[in-house]
Amino acid sequence: MAERPGEFELIARYFRPLASDPGAFGLVDDVAVYAPPHGEDLVLKADLIAEGIHFLPEDPPEAIAAKALRVNLSDLAGKGATPVGYLMSIALREDWTEDWIRAFADGLAADQQRFGVTLFGGDTNRAAGGLTVSISAFGLVPAGGVIRRSGAAPGDVVFVSGTVGDSALGLRVRLGTIDAMPAGKATDHLLDRYLYPQPRTELAPVLRRFATASLDVSDGLVGDFAHLCRASRVGGEIDAAAVPLSAGARALVANDRTAMATILAGGDDYEILAAVPEPDAEQYAEEAAEAGVPVTRIGRIVEGEGPPVVRDAEGDVLTLQGTSHVHF
Amino acid sequence: MAERPGEFELIARYFRPLASDPGAFGLVDDVAVYAPPHGEDLVLKADLIAEGIHFLPEDPPEAIAAKALRVNLSDLAGKGATPVGYLMSIALREDWTEDWIRAFADGLAADQQRFGVTLFGGDTNRAAGGLTVSISAFGLVPAGGVIRRSGAAPGDVVFVSGTVGDSALGLRVRLGTIDAMPAGKATDHLLDRYLYPQPRTELAPVLRRFATASLDVSDGLVGDFAHLCRASRVGGEIDAAAVPLSAGARALVANDRTAMATILAGGDDYEILAAVPEPDAEQYAEEAAEAGVPVTRIGRIVEGEGPPVVRDAEGDVLTLQGTSHVHF
Repeated sequence: MAERPGEFELIARYFRPLASDPGAFGLVDDVAVYAPPHGEDLVLKADLIAEGIHFLPEDPPEAIAAKALRVNLSDLAGKGATPVGYLMSIALREDWTEDWIRAFADGLAADQQRFGVTLFGGDTNRAAGGLTVSISAFGLVPAGGVIRRSGAAPGDVVFVSGTVGDSALGLRVRLGTIDAMPAGKATDHLLDRYLYPQPRTELAPVLRRFATASLDVSDGLVGDFAHLCRASRVGGEIDAAAVPLSAGARALVANDRTAMATILAGGDDYEILAAVPEPDAEQYAEEAAEAGVPVTRIGRIVEGEGPPVVRDAEGDVLTLQGTSHVHF
Repeated sequence: MAERPGEFELIARYFRPLASDPGAFGLVDDVAVYAPPHGEDLVLKADLIAEGIHFLPEDPPEAIAAKALRVNLSDLAGKGATPVGYLMSIALREDWTEDWIRAFADGLAADQQRFGVTLFGGDTNRAAGGLTVSISAFGLVPAGGVIRRSGAAPGDVVFVSGTVGDSALGLRVRLGTIDAMPAGKATDHLLDRYLYPQPRTELAPVLRRFATASLDVSDGLVGDFAHLCRASRVGGEIDAAAVPLSAGARALVANDRTAMATILAGGDDYEILAAVPEPDAEQYAEEAAEAGVPVTRIGRIVEGEGPPVVRDAEGDVLTLQGTSHVHF
C-alpha cells in the first residue's frame, strides 16, 4: 500500500481548501465561530450516513460525499432555511486510500459551490467497522420564520416537488429486486437519483411565503405525510394518480405491480411536501416553477386526526403494507 | 432477545426528555432553531468517538455518553466558550438493547444538568460495524472573544489545569502495558479519568480575561503545546518537574520509567493549556482557583519558532519519541 498521509496532513491537504469562511480559521484551531446576521434564526440539523445502511461500499466517493451533505441540506430546504455551512465528522475504514479521500473532497467541493455552503470544522478518525459520515448543517431563516410540520389546516392543498419514488426504485433496480426493464436513460435516471439526492434549496424562500407546514420526504411520501398530519392534528388525502412520476418510474409501474408501493412508501426522495392554503395554491406553483422547482398538487388536508388516505383514480382507498422506510 | 422499540419510539422514550429547549421542538420536527443573544458569537465544534478507537466495547454506556459529550465541551472550554447545546448522531451496533440506551440517555441527562446544556436534535441509526457517537456542540463567547491557538507572545507564562497524564496512564493500567501498582484509590482515579474526561467549563470566563492563547489537551501535553507554538509563531519551554501529577501518576512514575513519557505525550487529558502574560499570571491562577479549577505554571513562551523544549529538574533537555497521541 502506498504511504498514506497522517491525520493533520490529510486535513491540510483535502479539507482545509473546503473551509473558506474566516470563522473556520482554516481548520487550524479547535473550533469555528459564526454569528448569524441580526434578525435571523439559526436552523440546525444533524444526519449521519453509514456504509451498508445508507450507501453501498462500492458507491463512488463523490456520491457518498454528496449524499452525506445533501440529506442535511434537504432538511434545511424543507423548513424554509437557506444553507450556510456544516461540520463533518468522518470515521474512515481501515483500508482508506488517499485517492478515495481526494475524490470524496472533490465531491464536497462541487456541492459547496452548487449549494453555497462551506465547511466549518469537524473530525477525522479511523473506524473499527465501516465508513461513517456524520454532518451537522446549519442555515438561516428570518426570526420566527422556520416552517414547522404543524400548521396545516383543513382545506390546504398538498403539493410535492419533482418526482416521487425514483430513488427507492433505483435501489431496487440496483439490488435486482424488481422486474427488469431495459437499460437506458430512464433507468440511469433512477440509479442517479439513488446516488445523488437533489435538495430543493431554491424552494426555501417560496415555502416561507406560502407553506403552512412542510418537510422533506426522506422516510417515504405516505409516511412523511403522516408525520405532517400528526403534528398538525389533521387528516390528509393523496390521489395516487396525481403523484408525479419520472419516465423510468412510469415504465416500472407498467411492468411490476409492486412498483407503486415502493413509490408511495419507499423513501429517500428528498422532495418537499408542503401544505398551502387553497387561495395561494396557484401562486405557490407559479413561484416554485420560477425558482426552478416544479411542484404538483397531490392531495389535500382534511378534518379529523389520522394517517392520510391514499385513493386510486376511481376514488377507492389503497392499502399499503408499511408506509415508511426507516433507516434503522 | 426482548422486543426492541422502533426508531421513533426510541427517540420519544429516551432522547425527547433531553431536549428541553423550546427550539428543539421536542425532537418532533426535522430541525432545531437557535438564535444567539445579540453581541455573542456562536462557537462550533464537532467530535466523533468510535468503539475500539476512543472507548472499549465493554465500557459503561453512561461513560460512553459522557465521553462523547465531554470531549466537545472540553474544546469549547479551551476556547473560552460557555456551552449551550448539542446535536447527536448515533450509529448503534446490531445487538443494541433498550437497557443500554436507557443507561446511555441517563448518562447524557446527568451531564446536561452538570454542564448546563441540552440536546437540540440528531439522528439515530443502525451501524454495520461498531458503535459511533458523533456530537456537534455549540457555545457562546462575547463577539470577537474566542481565544485562538495563536496570540501567545514571548515572556508569557504557560499554565495547565488539573493534573496531566491520568487518563493515558489509566488506559495503560487497564490494558496491562505498565508495571503493576497496587489496586486502590490512586489507581481508581486513573481509570476514572480515562472513562470520564472532566471538561473545564468553569475556567472559560477566566481564560477570556487573561489568556493570549489556549486549547484543551487532547492529543498530549507536548503535542498540543507544539500546536499552540506553531499557531503563535513562537517557541516554548516545559519544566517536566513542574507538570502537576496526581498521587496515582506519581506512584507510577516512581515505579516505571516509561510513565513520564506517557504523561507528557499520552493525550486524552482534557485539561486546559493557556499562555498568560507574566504580569497577569498570579491573578489568573487566583481567579482560576476561585472558579474551582487549580492551574499550575509549567513553562513559558520564548522567542523563535519551533516545537517546545522539555527540561528535567537539572535543566537538561528531555527527548520524547512521539509527542502526540493521534486518534487515527
